[in-house]
Amino acid sequence: MIKLALAQINPTVGDLSGNTRKILEYAAQASKAGVALAVFPELAVCGYPPEDLLLKKHFVANNLKALDALAKKVRGITLIAGFVDSDSSGKIYNAAAIISEGKVQQVYHKQELPNYGVFDEKRYFAAGHEPCVFTLEGVKIGLNICEDIWIDGAVYQWEVKGGAQILINISSSPYQAGKVKEREELLRRRVKETRVPLAYINCVGGQDELVFDGGSMVVGAGGRLLARAAQFNEELLTVDLNRKDNPVAPVLDNNEEIYKALVTGTRDYALKNGFKKVALGLSGGIDSALVACIACDAFGPENVTAISMPSTFSSRGTRQDARMLAKNLRMELKEIPIKKVFASYLKTMQKLFARLPWSIAEENIQARIRGNILMAMSNKFGWLILTTGNKSEMAVGYCTLYGDMSGGYAVIKDVFKTKVYELSRYRNSLGSQPVIPKSILLRSPTAELRLNQTDEETLGAYEDLDKILMAYIEGHASPSDIVASGIDEKHVLQTVRLVDMNEYKRRQAPPGVKITPCAFGKDWRLPITNKYKE
Amino acid sequence: MIKLALAQINPTVGDLSGNTRKILEYAAQASKAGVALAVFPELAVCGYPPEDLLLKKHFVANNLKALDALAKKVRGITLIAGFVDSDSSGKIYNAAAIISEGKVQQVYHKQELPNYGVFDEKRYFAAGHEPCVFTLEGVKIGLNICEDIWIDGAVYQWEVKGGAQILINISSSPYQAGKVKEREELLRRRVKETRVPLAYINCVGGQDELVFDGGSMVVGAGGRLLARAAQFNEELLTVDLNRKDNPVAPVLDNNEEIYKALVTGTRDYALKNGFKKVALGLSGGIDSALVACIACDAFGPENVTAISMPSTFSSRGTRQDARMLAKNLRMELKEIPIKKVFASYLKTMQKLFARLPWSIAEENIQARIRGNILMAMSNKFGWLILTTGNKSEMAVGYCTLYGDMSGGYAVIKDVFKTKVYELSRYRNSLGSQPVIPKSILLRSPTAELRLNQTDEETLGAYEDLDKILMAYIEGHASPSDIVASGIDEKHVLQTVRLVDMNEYKRRQAPPGVKITPCAFGKDWRLPITNKYKE
Repeated sequence: MIKLALAQINPTVGDLSGNTRKILEYAAQASKAGVALAVFPELAVCGYPPEDLLLKKHFVANNLKALDALAKKVRGITLIAGFVDSDSSGKIYNAAAIISEGKVQQVYHKQELPNYGVFDEKRYFAAGHEPCVFTLEGVKIGLNICEDIWIDGAVYQWEVKGGAQILINISSSPYQAGKVKEREELLRRRVKETRVPLAYINCVGGQDELVFDGGSMVVGAGGRLLARAAQFNEELLTVDLNRKDNPVAPVLDNNEEIYKALVTGTRDYALKNGFKKVALGLSGGIDSALVACIACDAFGPENVTAISMPSTFSSRGTRQDARMLAKNLRMELKEIPIKKVFASYLKTMQKLFARLPWSIAEENIQARIRGNILMAMSNKFGWLILTTGNKSEMAVGYCTLYGDMSGGYAVIKDVFKTKVYELSRYRNSLGSQPVIPKSILLRSPTAELRLNQTDEETLGAYEDLDKILMAYIEGHASPSDIVASGIDEKHVLQTVRLVDMNEYKRRQAPPGVKITPCAFGKDWRLPITNKYKE
Repeated sequence: MIKLALAQINPTVGDLSGNTRKILEYAAQASKAGVALAVFPELAVCGYPPEDLLLKKHFVANNLKALDALAKKVRGITLIAGFVDSDSSGKIYNAAAIISEGKVQQVYHKQELPNYGVFDEKRYFAAGHEPCVFTLEGVKIGLNICEDIWIDGAVYQWEVKGGAQILINISSSPYQAGKVKEREELLRRRVKETRVPLAYINCVGGQDELVFDGGSMVVGAGGRLLARAAQFNEELLTVDLNRKDNPVAPVLDNNEEIYKALVTGTRDYALKNGFKKVALGLSGGIDSALVACIACDAFGPENVTAISMPSTFSSRGTRQDARMLAKNLRMELKEIPIKKVFASYLKTMQKLFARLPWSIAEENIQARIRGNILMAMSNKFGWLILTTGNKSEMAVGYCTLYGDMSGGYAVIKDVFKTKVYELSRYRNSLGSQPVIPKSILLRSPTAELRLNQTDEETLGAYEDLDKILMAYIEGHASPSDIVASGIDEKHVLQTVRLVDMNEYKRRQAPPGVKITPCAFGKDWRLPITNKYKE
């Protein structure tokens, strides 16, 4: 049996020359390691998902040119790499090329095109109809792409019936918490079914709201996991199917995995979009504390500026905590009080607002002053602004549009509040001293936009709130189902109503890392205008 | 041959009880008019497009219940109406029910599922496999849904081969300029092909970024247009296939059609989301002038508040023009100068910005002060804020995120600047006196965020700019193709670069009416992180 290398790389969407350069670098490493076959992820040439770039004929043509130029440089090794193929009728395919001796020897077209969740592949691609089996060093190898291995009885079966002794699946499979175990179970099931070893390659890195977690693996014919690459890092995983001592990276614990996903997604969004420095508003609350930790871990504290913008309603406690956290993280903290600007707004609005009571309007003016200041710093110094709102807030609209929602990337928009606490405690457990001050972990969450405000007074207890939200968002459960599960009816109905009526806010939110089965991104397509009630 | 009624209604997504009530009201009217058959649009029961509401099992179940309750009330007439069907395996279908004598007699499942442009039907629906022919008063009628009639050789053919003497197509076909003529040509082609009359029903009204323009029609077996409903209005179009004097509404001229689409989309977005009053920032420029006209025509001037927010850089001319326009439209105008608030920001940022030259940061602070004031008015008084940016600006990012982009609905976000002028002149042509002052039409467009700024200095001439944008956005053309069409290379490359790098802004923009083949909405899915260059 042959030795093969799984090249778990981090491509960038649209970067045809950069991606093919990277493929050649990894191919050279694989050659040096003496392997006959190096395998690259789905659509490695153009990056995944290219979305509507696929509607541009010149994009598809240039990706074919890039593949051709790449192939010309391949000698002494066989590569498999994902690209976009096209045919004379103008149809395009999510394809894999088998490359050797300076040219593309064979091409496979993906048959099962996912069109659910974050996926829109039927928008772009035609489905292939032919299985793909090729012979390398006397071994017959069956090749397929991502979804092809997830659907029972799909092309992999025909490839094995056609004589394949090894199956290779190239994927670009987006992360969600626990997905790597799900993939491993799937691969074991397929091996049990087909009785041939299965090599699975995934990419790594962030692309807008998606993170790819790698975790490429090989399951032997007996169903044993022979090798696994680490999650979230680029790696060339060299595997000898005849040996039992291939590297098997452990699967990360839930909190570590999610934390790394957040760091990876945030880092890649910034770097791939040309930002080296980031800034965030630091309130002294738990959300911005966690985002500050993620930012410092992603970019180094020397590239992070925290901005504290206290108002009349900011307590001494939160201001002190913000300073302590910045000190612990060795991150720069700037303090910009907003009182005077707020006063000048109130004066300007005085006539118009005359005699009307204090309301959400005054609260939001403050949040929007902060947004304006952060964006002014971004405009002046070229920093990417990270927003700090969590998923529980995004769900019920407990956030100010153009206020605390202002920024380029919403780091924890898919992290429920209860999970924010877990991740904060996880991050605190890493050093000898906790970086997030205990007082932040203990204080009742508050927006500090009026006197003595607390979140839970307005939204109900976060523990129940998050249960309701998970059932409603991920489970598509009806309010009455959620009530039947034992949660207070009033709390359920209020929460569901808030989720429904705040769709307009989410529509204008920046992207952020997807970590759950249903994030507020491409996998959440609810109408704003919507009169449905159960 | 039977007499039939096309019920061109305006359903609301999710409003199961409201929609079925409306269906029954129109059915009663049709009964009174003595017709045997009343036909309603695609998914009339639940509204179109329901998007991810379709992932909720309780939503599908409740839509079936609503259909059943509706059917029970039907006597003495046959109805056809669109709904969501489901089967025992959990698959769902875009379906049409034939209802009479208190129950659903027959069901058709749509076969051709659009999954391009704004459509995601393969995300939700399984495709049907059976044609549908039923007999009414001795006449055989073939039934199909929207896309089924657009695909050559689709189910309509089999229905005619199966004996259908009339074809009925129920649609919810979104508007884009000129679409009604395209539909008419299609219908004539199908009639020529099948030699049977074809009745086509479309809905009307706005749903988020989509507008449905109605224009339901019947083409006789000879290829003659027998009847047409007006565009954009609810109507019960009663048609006797044997008569030549059925009502045939004229097709609107291009500018009138687009203007009505903008009015309809804006009005329905506001009303269906519970807003009766709107406000907008009035700069004295052409964009906000046009939006003010649209708002007054949609809601009545008594429900529109214009807010002028002059800065140091606002000229006397623009301020006077804003006042004149408000007077002409009989719309309230409030003036809120932003100088003092701007000064307080500059003072607050003084230390941080020390010695750095004036930049985009100071320009944007002003735009964001205006955004904050508008949103404060919205929060205080419950008004929907209309934004006033046009498509040319949205395309190249010549707008301030959280500044002039702040608001609930972006009325002209799909209208190119050159078209803004055309529509303004069209609107001025309606009255005996032009409502938009000539000086607004004549002044060089300017953002007035620094001294002597003009748009075209920064962006190049709008006439060329819009040509580049149209080719790049709607035509998916490459920069070199656009240069080859005769436009200055530097202008093309600068424009394309701006479009690509401002994807992040568009992602956070409010929705607005789609009027072109490719709006910046569901039909534009470009990655933000994107290193592709031709």
